[in-house]
Amino acid sequence: MTENEDDILDRPAADETHDDIYDEEGSVRHDFLTMVGAAIADRDVIFLRQNVARLHESELGDLIEAIQPDQRLAMIRLLGDDFDMTALTEVDEAIRMQIVDQMPNEQIAAAIGELDSDDAVYILEDLDDEDREEILAQLPFTERVRLRRALDYPESSAGRRMQTEFVAVPPFWTVGQTIDYMRDEEDLPESFTQIFVIDPTFKLLGAVNLDRILRTKRQVKIETIMHATNHPIPAEMDQEEAAQLFEQYDLLSAAVVDENERLVGVLTIDDVVDVIQEEAEEDLLRLGGVGDEELSDSVAETSRSRVPWLAVNLVTAFLAASVISLFEATIEQIVALAVLMPIVAGMGGNAGSQTMTVTVRALATRNLDIHNAFRVVRREAGVGLLNGVVFGILIGAIAGFWFQDVNIGGIIAAAMLINMMAAAIAGILIPLALDRFGADPAVASAVFVTTVTDITGFFAFLGLATWWFM
Amino acid sequence: MTENEDDILDRPAADETHDDIYDEEGSVRHDFLTMVGAAIADRDVIFLRQNVARLHESELGDLIEAIQPDQRLAMIRLLGDDFDMTALTEVDEAIRMQIVDQMPNEQIAAAIGELDSDDAVYILEDLDDEDREEILAQLPFTERVRLRRALDYPESSAGRRMQTEFVAVPPFWTVGQTIDYMRDEEDLPESFTQIFVIDPTFKLLGAVNLDRILRTKRQVKIETIMHATNHPIPAEMDQEEAAQLFEQYDLLSAAVVDENERLVGVLTIDDVVDVIQEEAEEDLLRLGGVGDEELSDSVAETSRSRVPWLAVNLVTAFLAASVISLFEATIEQIVALAVLMPIVAGMGGNAGSQTMTVTVRALATRNLDIHNAFRVVRREAGVGLLNGVVFGILIGAIAGFWFQDVNIGGIIAAAMLINMMAAAIAGILIPLALDRFGADPAVASAVFVTTVTDITGFFAFLGLATWWFM
Repeated sequence: MTENEDDILDRPAADETHDDIYDEEGSVRHDFLTMVGAAIADRDVIFLRQNVARLHESELGDLIEAIQPDQRLAMIRLLGDDFDMTALTEVDEAIRMQIVDQMPNEQIAAAIGELDSDDAVYILEDLDDEDREEILAQLPFTERVRLRRALDYPESSAGRRMQTEFVAVPPFWTVGQTIDYMRDEEDLPESFTQIFVIDPTFKLLGAVNLDRILRTKRQVKIETIMHATNHPIPAEMDQEEAAQLFEQYDLLSAAVVDENERLVGVLTIDDVVDVIQEEAEEDLLRLGGVGDEELSDSVAETSRSRVPWLAVNLVTAFLAASVISLFEATIEQIVALAVLMPIVAGMGGNAGSQTMTVTVRALATRNLDIHNAFRVVRREAGVGLLNGVVFGILIGAIAGFWFQDVNIGGIIAAAMLINMMAAAIAGILIPLALDRFGADPAVASAVFVTTVTDITGFFAFLGLATWWFM
Repeated sequence: MTENEDDILDRPAADETHDDIYDEEGSVRHDFLTMVGAAIADRDVIFLRQNVARLHESELGDLIEAIQPDQRLAMIRLLGDDFDMTALTEVDEAIRMQIVDQMPNEQIAAAIGELDSDDAVYILEDLDDEDREEILAQLPFTERVRLRRALDYPESSAGRRMQTEFVAVPPFWTVGQTIDYMRDEEDLPESFTQIFVIDPTFKLLGAVNLDRILRTKRQVKIETIMHATNHPIPAEMDQEEAAQLFEQYDLLSAAVVDENERLVGVLTIDDVVDVIQEEAEEDLLRLGGVGDEELSDSVAETSRSRVPWLAVNLVTAFLAASVISLFEATIEQIVALAVLMPIVAGMGGNAGSQTMTVTVRALATRNLDIHNAFRVVRREAGVGLLNGVVFGILIGAIAGFWFQDVNIGGIIAAAMLINMMAAAIAGILIPLALDRFGADPAVASAVFVTTVTDITGFFAFLGLATWWFM
């Protein structure tokens, strides 16, 4: 390592700042990657300890994703005990699996013992049963019991995401006793923003925010300053539902309780932020007709995951084609129709997508429900009508001029108007209907909406032309 | 009010639970709406105080959105001082504007004096200059100065979203002094999770989380337990960038500093969650070709906001149509081509949308950058090739069988393969290029991608057919 590199990188841990390892675009800096790569090749443990081990877990995660796949395990081996396993919760699932599969179970067990329970569960839940059991067997009893209990809750439930470390005190303690307890106790969670109040059976009685404790005189009893935990989260609750509670009530953390209302853990906002991100991402990907795919998936995996919607689209495309085939005789006479017909279908598809996007989003954010559905449908129909008239006239004029035929202009204008209305109504009713029947409106809306606009577009345009000309 | 309703609704304030006012689908319960409506009509202030005033601000916001527009102001008037103005930060912008416009400025000023500064700014920033000045003039001096300063920062900046209330202490204070200060001081923020350490000029020196204070003995000096604030947020920073820092470093709150690194406020995770939601929503809406529209916008507003993309689509649709018109002679001979050509274009469009969705999302979450772009392009081309072969053969077989012509089957299969490859490459290169040139990749990708797949689809299919048959 040269003197110069030393200057750039060798700062004390407290000074880790955002621009340290990232370039202006938020990617890991290229010169940093080169240096880390060289250090791995040279087995330069000192450099890695000084410059990699000190990174924040999310920075380390980004670094792991950015280096070459074959460098990843080598770097983790070189770091040894200095490797912060939490970083693995910050990388793509595929990369995490790859790394964990190749690490010896003993090392994973040792590292997992150091993690907060929610991070430990995050890593353990992806392992196959055999490896998981082997790792759990190597953990201390209480740790093992805690993790097993969390892993017993359903996937994507609050119980899986919760942290089993928390501070809980009896209601008759005073503020002074509570503060003294926290000063003396070694085994506290790494950070927390509220403490819980429980009875001897661990039943949840309330919670106190830390600022409340700090403002209160020592002799005051906890029960007089605790607040009811308005939103204790059942461990079985889906993480998405829990996230909605956090958003709605601006929670920082919330108690997680079992079926007997006993406190089993705490769900914190940082995990919830990840859930919110994932959910938004899922909506977007589903609307685009792709599943839960990651950039690190292979070609074969990606191809396979995209086949279902392409296959559905294949059926609907032939459906639309069969509508066209009804009018072969007309097209044979007036080829201009074949030239123009995709315009009507395409514009309708676009308008339908616009309405559908707004509808899916409104359903996801609960801004649309049975009470205002009728008003929203009426509004969308109005928008369809207005834009249908505008673009009908425009397209009619252009097409009439192009083919020097006022009849064709009139027919395409009328077809356009009909299809824009159909697009508006399909764009709202299809997601609403899917939602009503318990299906995710983001998943199948696009394909149904374009089917409606294709078929309506072809039928209206070719049908009107046949009726008029033939 | 009957005895029975009383049972359902008249619970003590501490007991407000999620299922109180919502039905199973998360909408405000219909019977509750009816009762509130009746109470407004009857001017039943007691009912409203007991059942509406006690709601959480977000519940009150949902209620305001759910009742009839003409009931909203009436309810707020009846509630008087018991109306929690914060609820207005939880409703649609259009509804908020409507309500605030009709409220007398004196009442707004009185209510705003009670709010946290971030909520006050949220409401003030939408008002026109005259009303805003009139309201500000009625506030106490310090309050006015604080709000003015926040309002001076650019829209959507951290300075606008920050709270100007915070706890700051000098570094030489002990933990004991700090706790005593908090016990005695009346004017503390409503809730907080960390306190800041400043020098006499308000320059930020560090921060201490509350749990750290509670674990530390009274005689210990603050400067020995404070941590460097690794991510102080410049007040001018865009809120989206600030939100990314929160996500990356799992922050609960962060200091906001001015250009001289003096502490001016604190940004909290609950505001950041809203920003994250908004940004995800924006991406989704932009991909769907709609702007920042709200369900409460009028027909005319909505129509207008959707016109730009429909207009662009109009141009591209005619571009595609002009490709078809090149082959009019061929279509006249073989009408089957007109029937089948939308299949090639449509399937390509769908495949392109899939790739584009993944690309836009990967760019937004910074999983895709210049370093891995080449690998991702290669992978997408592979996916396009694989799915092109699969669906080419499938469609070729169906089309050949349908029109009893093996030539048509072969031609559509080849065109399909070409278009799927084009779709894959356009689906990734177009968003990447837009991003490279500083444009939002979500905004215009869809229209460009479908233009490529339409034109390629028509050209490949009709071109191959012309070359083969003519």
